[in-house]
Amino acid sequence: MSEISTNSVGFGSVGIVSAQTAHFDAPLTLKSGAVLPSFDLMYETYGTLNAAKSNAVIVCHALSGNHHVAGKYHESDKSAGWWDNLIGPNKPLDTNKFFVIGLNNLGGCHGSSGPSSVNADTGKPFGAAFPIVTVDDWVNSQALLLDYLGIETLAAVIGGSLGGMQALQWTLAYPTRIKHALVIASAPNLTAQNIAFNEVARQAIMTDPEFYAGDYYSHNTVPRRGLRIARMLGHITYLSDDAMGAKFGRKLKDEIKYSFDVEFEMESYLRYQGDKFAGEFDANTYLRMTRALDYYDPALDFGGDLSAALSKVKAEFLVLSFTSDWRFSPARSREIVKALLDNELTVSYAEVTAAHGHDAFLMPDAHYHSILRSYFSQVEV
Amino acid sequence: MSEISTNSVGFGSVGIVSAQTAHFDAPLTLKSGAVLPSFDLMYETYGTLNAAKSNAVIVCHALSGNHHVAGKYHESDKSAGWWDNLIGPNKPLDTNKFFVIGLNNLGGCHGSSGPSSVNADTGKPFGAAFPIVTVDDWVNSQALLLDYLGIETLAAVIGGSLGGMQALQWTLAYPTRIKHALVIASAPNLTAQNIAFNEVARQAIMTDPEFYAGDYYSHNTVPRRGLRIARMLGHITYLSDDAMGAKFGRKLKDEIKYSFDVEFEMESYLRYQGDKFAGEFDANTYLRMTRALDYYDPALDFGGDLSAALSKVKAEFLVLSFTSDWRFSPARSREIVKALLDNELTVSYAEVTAAHGHDAFLMPDAHYHSILRSYFSQVEV
Repeated sequence: MSEISTNSVGFGSVGIVSAQTAHFDAPLTLKSGAVLPSFDLMYETYGTLNAAKSNAVIVCHALSGNHHVAGKYHESDKSAGWWDNLIGPNKPLDTNKFFVIGLNNLGGCHGSSGPSSVNADTGKPFGAAFPIVTVDDWVNSQALLLDYLGIETLAAVIGGSLGGMQALQWTLAYPTRIKHALVIASAPNLTAQNIAFNEVARQAIMTDPEFYAGDYYSHNTVPRRGLRIARMLGHITYLSDDAMGAKFGRKLKDEIKYSFDVEFEMESYLRYQGDKFAGEFDANTYLRMTRALDYYDPALDFGGDLSAALSKVKAEFLVLSFTSDWRFSPARSREIVKALLDNELTVSYAEVTAAHGHDAFLMPDAHYHSILRSYFSQVEV
Repeated sequence: MSEISTNSVGFGSVGIVSAQTAHFDAPLTLKSGAVLPSFDLMYETYGTLNAAKSNAVIVCHALSGNHHVAGKYHESDKSAGWWDNLIGPNKPLDTNKFFVIGLNNLGGCHGSSGPSSVNADTGKPFGAAFPIVTVDDWVNSQALLLDYLGIETLAAVIGGSLGGMQALQWTLAYPTRIKHALVIASAPNLTAQNIAFNEVARQAIMTDPEFYAGDYYSHNTVPRRGLRIARMLGHITYLSDDAMGAKFGRKLKDEIKYSFDVEFEMESYLRYQGDKFAGEFDANTYLRMTRALDYYDPALDFGGDLSAALSKVKAEFLVLSFTSDWRFSPARSREIVKALLDNELTVSYAEVTAAHGHDAFLMPDAHYHSILRSYFSQVEV
């Protein structure tokens, strides 16, 4: 998703930050039954943990996110963390009040254990041998990170998209350890259409001749073509038809050449985004992130009854959706709201008018941010 | 798009049909400036041309269609032509009244001259050397086919999707040769999102290592992986989110295996459709069909003013859209209707409530077919 970093007047930056690694030696049994004998989580923190250790907020990332949520590593960095517009002193998620934790999820490619990590048993990257991880596994590993940091209870968990699923899962798996969940541009599970887009992306990667069944590291190559296609497709679904129309429309790059080279600016944008991502991200991680999305379905063990699935939840919620988001439409957020209300839980719901589609959750929209500011301001720490 | 063939009681089939080839020796200058020194068009006809030669209807195909619109080649054929549910004795497009012509467009891969045809100059397939063809070129070649058949004036042209663009273009290019245009599930041009989907499909094909810059024929291979991805993606856009939800939802193929094999029925369907298409269709044709879609924009030379672009049109219109079609939404059809009305032309508009998305134009929906039947019944021949 797009990286946005703005620093409006009066809002502070968390400044220069650095990432840290937490190592876990106890075996972690995953939902699939596979066991990770040990693992690392890469994380960053912003703000200060208070004496009561009651002000911690975990930020969960989506498909291609990571632990670098706010601030910069060096003054010269061109861009800040991916949710820097939200997090900092006096920003909606105010680091004067909260101790904010960002981490890279298990299976990721930004420092936490994942397919590109070296398997201690073999001295080579895990590759295909790295297990499938799920939203449940991520939340369990995040709870272990909390233990590691000496924090029992979270003031809040916030996430957009796949991150929102993690926020929801926190309230199910650890009802006594989380006070507030902010579930943004998310859904209680994927639709058939969502799964279909993920499957096309995966097939593009897995049928790339340079995928080598996931062990491309040992062939000194990457399935760049497939990952590029996956990302181009992703970008279409992150934006609304209207936003694409407003930004690109049918604008031509130049005179029509009657060729398969770039003719329209839309094409140029997609190719650029695809190329950039394919040079940065790990294909095996992409596969696992999309699979985690596909599998998440807390109602599955309750005959599809989400209200029954949420019966043990105690947290208070902000559920927020964007009108032009067709990947995770407002209707899907309303399903979550209904299930929470069926359980007589405290839930605020906001449907924000925004043109940017699913990507809106990363944008510094004034109305959106004012809702988050207001919600966080009433979270007691 | 899906092939549908139903034969309800009381509706007849055109029976056993055979395709014919028309050869054209006069050079055809294309919109790009390229010249085809000669070319073939593969076509079929159903019904009988009347003495006044006033009852001809051309059926224009969409992305992956061809000249085999109705009937079967052999009694044992499993499926009939792609619009067999519409065309035949007593069917909505009644072959007792009309002489119906289906043809494979230039650049196609079903018998008309295209990239897989042998270039007489080299004795090898054209491959990348086959020029880019446009909607304008198709309509011009269709007019030459009419000349060849000794037909001056068409009772009607009908087409869905890209076929609808051809129907519209007929009224622009040959206003005195066409009485009625039936423009179904179409648009006056593609949106940025449409172009984006086409570009992802093309990039999947063109970055397939077996594409060989379009000259894969001489390498005895085909860019099957890329074409498969393109078709999988296409299928997502042909169906509505709701139709996919109703047909597949989150249905699992079996127990969850935590793997990248097929887990959901949605995935199984897409892979099947992709594999099937990749074994049948020519990738170079797919590229050209999507490019023709991208380029079509009759308002371009009129500063984007579609009403001005249609000022010389004389035909009467049926414009028809489907409520769940997000690829060519009803709003796009209404743009055509408005421009026609601005020119005080006779236009009927129908917005059919249908769940099947863009593919609805191929389905034997009773309401849809009753509208077509009613429209064709008042076409004078």
